[in-house]
Parts: sequence; structure tokens; C-alpha cells
Amino acid sequence: MTSHTADFETRLNTAIDTKTKPVGALGQIESLAATIATVQNTLTPRVDRCDHFIFAGDHGIATAGVSAYPQAVTRQMVENFLNGGAAANVFARSVGAEVHVVDAGNVGAPIAHAALLNRRPGAGTANAIEEPAMSDAQVQGAMAAGRALANASQADLLCCGEMGIGNTSAAALTGAKILGLDVGTLTGRGTGLDDQALARKTDLLKRAAARTAPKLTAEAALKEYGGFEIAMMAGAMIGGAATGKIVVIDGFIATASALCATRIAPSSRAAFVFAHRSAEAGHRVLLDALQAKPLLDLNLRLGEGTGALLAVPLIRAAAAMLRDMSSFADAGVSGPA
Amino acid sequence: MTSHTADFETRLNTAIDTKTKPVGALGQIESLAATIATVQNTLTPRVDRCDHFIFAGDHGIATAGVSAYPQAVTRQMVENFLNGGAAANVFARSVGAEVHVVDAGNVGAPIAHAALLNRRPGAGTANAIEEPAMSDAQVQGAMAAGRALANASQADLLCCGEMGIGNTSAAALTGAKILGLDVGTLTGRGTGLDDQALARKTDLLKRAAARTAPKLTAEAALKEYGGFEIAMMAGAMIGGAATGKIVVIDGFIATASALCATRIAPSSRAAFVFAHRSAEAGHRVLLDALQAKPLLDLNLRLGEGTGALLAVPLIRAAAAMLRDMSSFADAGVSGPA
Repeated sequence: MTSHTADFETRLNTAIDTKTKPVGALGQIESLAATIATVQNTLTPRVDRCDHFIFAGDHGIATAGVSAYPQAVTRQMVENFLNGGAAANVFARSVGAEVHVVDAGNVGAPIAHAALLNRRPGAGTANAIEEPAMSDAQVQGAMAAGRALANASQADLLCCGEMGIGNTSAAALTGAKILGLDVGTLTGRGTGLDDQALARKTDLLKRAAARTAPKLTAEAALKEYGGFEIAMMAGAMIGGAATGKIVVIDGFIATASALCATRIAPSSRAAFVFAHRSAEAGHRVLLDALQAKPLLDLNLRLGEGTGALLAVPLIRAAAAMLRDMSSFADAGVSGPA
Repeated sequence: MTSHTADFETRLNTAIDTKTKPVGALGQIESLAATIATVQNTLTPRVDRCDHFIFAGDHGIATAGVSAYPQAVTRQMVENFLNGGAAANVFARSVGAEVHVVDAGNVGAPIAHAALLNRRPGAGTANAIEEPAMSDAQVQGAMAAGRALANASQADLLCCGEMGIGNTSAAALTGAKILGLDVGTLTGRGTGLDDQALARKTDLLKRAAARTAPKLTAEAALKEYGGFEIAMMAGAMIGGAATGKIVVIDGFIATASALCATRIAPSSRAAFVFAHRSAEAGHRVLLDALQAKPLLDLNLRLGEGTGALLAVPLIRAAAAMLRDMSSFADAGVSGPA
């Protein structure tokens, strides 16, 4: 992130306010345009190329029965991503984004596929109910891998998505420990638990939370409860922000990564655009902690960065508004009487 | 609209539910896909070409001082649309839509411009505080002109936008009379009135409303209080629906037209996609009357169909989801345990 003078901010606000529309009439598109301009340090921003990373990782806690789906689905979905058939692939093609599938540590042997980016810190995390999910080295390695991927990207826009059976549990625990909250306030139905299964999940997460102090640093929370994909995504967010990219944050899991990223590298926050308010119960808590107001609220609860991808056209439109829209003076249009 | 068999509905629901995602996990995108499939009568819908019509008309009531902007702005903005500099132009280019500017009756002489579609029923409506805004012939002529434009369009998707200083007043009066409500419940700040100006606007609209019975048919409400662009847009919505297009409804004014359209041609409703929940106070009332849940809520209050344009990529993504996403069987992915 470049630092900005008061002069830049004044020129930016003037540019937005003198477009041929009543002041403020484009609502959240105006504040979005301001974010983009600030990240790119220009009053004529462009958002062309978009890279979409899907980080897939497995979770030891999934074996305890916190999800409606078997753990094998993580790996099957990686194959679906590589074959172009998942929701994220379809949306990426629809909005013009390039998908990059990252093996962030699935269970079993590595998948052999030319397009798969192998960044495995291990074959899934340990069961966080019983022991730390990762080692310190795995946390640092995962974050460094994410940062390197983001640094190497030539895109204007970085979307971050994830896949990992059990990762709403890891995100709830990580977020709760960073914020010092009871994990129950962040525990939700994930991919579709019924009431009984939700009660069981909540009990298991409370047991896991009881293992450590009520409040942890982001790094410690990642080590104790995080996931490989959550740490790698946090690294990618930090790397994207540091290299002048707009970073689009998807739903609950990605927002847990964003919370980690802002605790570790606070200046990253200025590059984050929050895409979608997830139906997952804990998302609101994390968004409030980050003072974030997402662009969309479509009742999605899928992950894969699907919400981020759907927000991409809004981000492009906001950049175009600032870059291309006429001012009252340009167009010879009268202001208020 | 074609009528649909129960068999089509069953096949549609099965197609959506067996995609590689938990049932319902794509939220509003799933119901949007169902709407598109039903309009196009296919399980492999396509949304490629999008026509964006901007209907610009003037309002006699504007001379009474209901708007923050002088009436001349309608004409100036028509020139801005023709020059490609307005928000609607910028968003249309950004999402790949073609803009068609329609002179639906601006004050003064017709604007001479090769690209302007001249469909003027008159040089602005009469002042609805004192007398009917239009004649019966003008209502019918405006609606027929809108219908003809929509019929002639070759697009899959029809976005409807408007421009007209004073048209939140016309929309509030038209909507209130159709629903039999006090016009105050639909009166808002338009392009940015302060409290005092809002109180004055409300008084003027109540005076206008007192001229006629509390509840009117859509045609009578249009004649007494409507605008040329509101009637023409209602005609375009009916024509678009009748010719198998998806009709994207923007904010407050467009929703008043949609209310007229559904009263006049109830089957039109099935083709409507509501794009944006406007910041204008009365919009919620009209949306509730139409049982509509818009896709976006970005605090826009500009008109021009800007909200409709921003929703276009979501509609394309929903069609692509149904058409291109793999099923569990296609992809060899396991369902819930």
C-alpha cells in the first residue's frame, strides 16, 4: 500500500462528487470506487485481470463429525475444480476470472494434475479437539506460500476462495480465539447441518476451545485451530495487498483469514473488498470486527470464493465509473437549483 | 410466456438440486436460475445479449418545485446519455449491454440526434396537482410505443431505466393510487431533498392525490398521475415478457411501472427480475406489493436503470450455473454422509 496525501483524498472526493449524478446517489459503488482508487493510487483506476485462487485443505476435526459431508469430498471437489465443473469455475468464466487451484493439504496422496498448484504443508491438519491443528512451521510455511502466490500474480484483482470439509469449524474456532469470544457465537450450520448435528458440532467446538486460553494472537489461533487453506489464504491476502492488488474477500472462512491478515499486517485492510454476507451465523461477528459491509447478500453458503466472483463485475463497474463517467462540467449538466 | 408443465418444474428443481453443492447453497442465484429457465423454457438457458432502454420524460409537476434539480436537467441528461458519459452508459459498457435512449416526451423541441429514438407523446406531462397528467390517448400511445420497442429487441435481457426530473413524485402518486395508500407512505427524498423540501413535496403530492378517488386502476392512475416514461416503460415490460425476454426492473420508478404492467398484464410478472432495492422510501412498499426481493442493495438512488445494469452479471452467472455446472453424478462427488 502506498500512503496517501490529504490532497489525493480531496481530489478523489471531488472527482466522485462532480460526476453527473446527485452527490452520493451511487451509494456503495462510490465508496468502492474510492477504495480502488486508493489501492491503485490513481483517479483513473482500471480493474481488468482477475485471478481467483481456490485453496483446498483438509481438517483433522472433520473426522470427529462436524460436517454433513464426508472428508473425501474435499479431494473430489479439487478434481471438480480442475475439470472446470464447480460453481466457482462457472462463475469465474462468467465474470472473466482465471481459476488457480491450490492443494493446500488434502488428505491422502498428492493429486497429480498439471494445473494443480501443490503447496501442501501436510496431508490435512491434526484434530484440533485434541491437539494443535498445525505446527508453527506449518503456519509460517502456509502463509509464506499464499504470500508468494499473490506476489507472483499479475492481476489487478485477487479473489480468494476455499474448499475444505470441516472448515467452518476451523474458522469459527480461529475467529473466536482472536476476538476472545465464546465459539458458540460463531458456530453455524456449515453446508447444512440440522438442529441435532449443529448442537453436536457446538459441543465439539467448545471442547476444542477449552484446550487453550480464551484469547490468542492470530498466529497462535491459526496454529491451534486454523486450517492450511485458512493460513495460506491469509498469506495471499497480505501479499495481494502489499503488491497493490484489490483483494476480494468471500464469506465466513475467507473473512476468518482476513481477520488473521489484518492482525498480522494491519495495513492490508485498506485493500480488502468484502464481497458477500454469508448465511453462516458467525459471519456477521467477523464482519463487525473488521468494520466491513459486504457488497452482496444473496444467501450463499457454498465457499469456493463464489461470492467474491459474483462481486467482481461491481468492482469493475465502480472503477469504470470513476475513470469514465462525465462530470457536470464535462457534460454541461446543471447542478441542484 | 409459455405455460409450463409440472414435469418441467420437477426437472428444473432436480437439475438445480443435483449440482455439485449442498442443496440451496447458492441461495438467490438458484431462484434466479429457475426464473430464467422458466422464461426461456429450457434447462440450459443463455443470457447473452442485453438491451438497455432509457426512457426520458418530463413532468408538469416538476414546475411546482418537487425536485432538487431544475427541469432542464432531463434534457441535458439525454444529451449526456447520447454522448456516453452518464452512469448508465459506463455501467452498460462495463457489463456488455447496448444503450438505447428514448425521448419519451421532454419539454421543449425534439432533440435532433441520429441515435435518439423519438417516441414523444407530448412535450412533458401536465401538472398532476391541477389536472390529469396525460390524456387516455397518451397513456395508450406511450404504452404501445414501449411495447413495440421491446418486441423489436433481439436481446435475451431487457433492462429498463428512466430519467425525468420530478418522476419520483409521479411514481409515488401512481403507485399509491393503484394500491389505495396514502401518498405520504411512498414519498421520499428523490435526488436529495432536505427535510423542509421533503415536507413541501409531501404536501404537494397530497394535494394532487386529493383530486381523485383513493384507489384507481393502473390505466387511470397513469392518466391522472403517471409520466410518459413510466407508461412507456410499463409497455416495454409487458412487451419484453410477452416475447420471452427476461425483464430487469431497476429502482423506485421502474418498480412503479412494473406494478402497472402486472395489473394490466398479470402474466408479465413471471419474467421480471428485480435488480436493486432503492434508497427511495416508497420502494419497499411497491416491492412488497409485487412480492419482489431484489438482488442488490447498494444504496443507489440515481435511476437511469443503473441498478438493473449492475445486476446483469448476476443474471448471466445464474444462467451459466444451471447450464454449465456439473452434477454430483457428472463429477463423481459424494453427497451428504
